[in-house]
Amino acid sequence: MAGKKWLRLVKSLHQKKYRNQHQLFFIEGAKAVSTLIAAGSVPERIFVTPDQESQFSYSQTEIINEQELKKISALQHPNGVLGVFRMPSPKEISPKDWSVALDDVRDPGNLGTIIRLCDWFGIKNIVCSNTTVDCYNPKVLQATMGSIAQVNMVYSDLESYLGSLGLPIYGAVMEGTTVYQTALPASGILLLGNEANGISASLMQKLHAKIAIPQFGRETAESLNVAMATGILLSEIRRR
Amino acid sequence: MAGKKWLRLVKSLHQKKYRNQHQLFFIEGAKAVSTLIAAGSVPERIFVTPDQESQFSYSQTEIINEQELKKISALQHPNGVLGVFRMPSPKEISPKDWSVALDDVRDPGNLGTIIRLCDWFGIKNIVCSNTTVDCYNPKVLQATMGSIAQVNMVYSDLESYLGSLGLPIYGAVMEGTTVYQTALPASGILLLGNEANGISASLMQKLHAKIAIPQFGRETAESLNVAMATGILLSEIRRR
Repeated sequence: MAGKKWLRLVKSLHQKKYRNQHQLFFIEGAKAVSTLIAAGSVPERIFVTPDQESQFSYSQTEIINEQELKKISALQHPNGVLGVFRMPSPKEISPKDWSVALDDVRDPGNLGTIIRLCDWFGIKNIVCSNTTVDCYNPKVLQATMGSIAQVNMVYSDLESYLGSLGLPIYGAVMEGTTVYQTALPASGILLLGNEANGISASLMQKLHAKIAIPQFGRETAESLNVAMATGILLSEIRRR
Repeated sequence: MAGKKWLRLVKSLHQKKYRNQHQLFFIEGAKAVSTLIAAGSVPERIFVTPDQESQFSYSQTEIINEQELKKISALQHPNGVLGVFRMPSPKEISPKDWSVALDDVRDPGNLGTIIRLCDWFGIKNIVCSNTTVDCYNPKVLQATMGSIAQVNMVYSDLESYLGSLGLPIYGAVMEGTTVYQTALPASGILLLGNEANGISASLMQKLHAKIAIPQFGRETAESLNVAMATGILLSEIRRR
C-alpha cells in the first residue's frame, strides 16, 4: 500500500502553491506517464492499481488501491496510473525558431491544447505571463496528452522578458492584417491574449505586427477560440 | 408562469427521438437566442426569467421562474433564457463552394466547434453521416454559440449522398499528402472522420485525394483533434 506521506503530498499537488513549493507535479494515465518517461523525465513515484502493475517496472512504482487513488486523483474516474514528476527548470528560448507567448490565457483546456499544438508543430518554447493558468494544473495536463515533456515552459513578466529576447512579436489581434498576406520571418514570437480581453494594452505597444485570421462568413460570427487561432497561425508559420 | 404542457415538451426535447418527432429544438442564453432570431429563425416560445424579460419583446415570450427553468434546462447553471425553435428543412448543397462532411463524429463539443468554424469561414453546408452526433443535441448547441442558424445541416447516408453530388472529396487522413502542397479546386467536399477510427473503409474508396496537416514535432505526437484539423484545413481552403 502507498505510504500516507506520499498520499498527502500528491493531494497537496492539486494546488499551485504546493506544486511550486515542492517543485513537483503529477500526471495521470499509463500513456501520459509513459510519454513523459520516454521523453527523459524521471518519475519520483508511479502509483498503479494492481491491474496496471504489469505496465510499469520502475523501482519507483508503488501499488495503490482504488480507494486510495480516488482520494488523490484529479479525475472523476481515475484510470489506474498516477505519476509524480519533478518540474524541469525553464531553459533559454532559442532565437532561431518561433516561440509562442501567452498573455493571461486562463482556461486550462486552452493551455493544454496549445501545448499539444506546439508539440505537433515542433514549437519548443512557450512563454506565459505570470497570470496565465499554471501548466502543471491537472486540468491542463489532462488536455496535453503527455506533450508537456516536449515543450519548454517559461513563466515570466512578458513585457520585460519578450523585450529582452529581441525577436519580432506578432500579435493575434481581431483587427490585424490577414496572416495569409503577412510576410513571416524565420523566427519570432507569436503572441496570443486572454480569452475575453485579448492582448493587454501595454503589450500591444510592443508588437512588430498585428495579424488576424480573416473571416469569410457573417461579420458577427463568434470569434475563433484562442487555441483554434493558435493552431491555424502555427500552421501558417510552418507552411512557409 | 409557463404552461405545464410546454415544460413537459421542452424536457422531452433533451432526447433526439422527441426532437425529431416534434421537429423542434431548444437553445439557451440571450445571445444565442438573439443570434438565431437575427438569422431569421422564428421562435416557437422564448422562456425568460423575470430579470431577463426586458431583453425580449416577442409575442412568444413567456415568463418562467428559476425553479421551472432549472427543471427544463440542459445547463448546470441556467442563464435565464431558453428559446424553442423549429428545425429548418435541409437545403440542397451548393456545387459552387466547399462543403464539410463528417463521418461518425461523436463528440458534441467537436461538432459544435466545427459548426462555429464553418460560420467563421463562410462554409454554408455540413453533411453528416447518420451516426454523427445530432446537431440539435443541447451540448452541441452550447458549443456553436448561435452559429447553427448560419449553416445548412444535412444528415444522410454519406456514401450515396456524397456520390450523388459529383464533387471531388478530400479526406483528412493521417497518412495523406501535405495539404500545403495539394492543389485545391474552387469547390469540393472536405471529409473528416471519427475521433478514434478516422474515415470508414467504404468512404476511403470514394476519396479524390487524401490530405494531411504535416507534423513538425516528434513523430509520436498525439494527433490533432478533429475540430482543430477542420479549422486548419478550412483556413487552407479559404487562403487560396
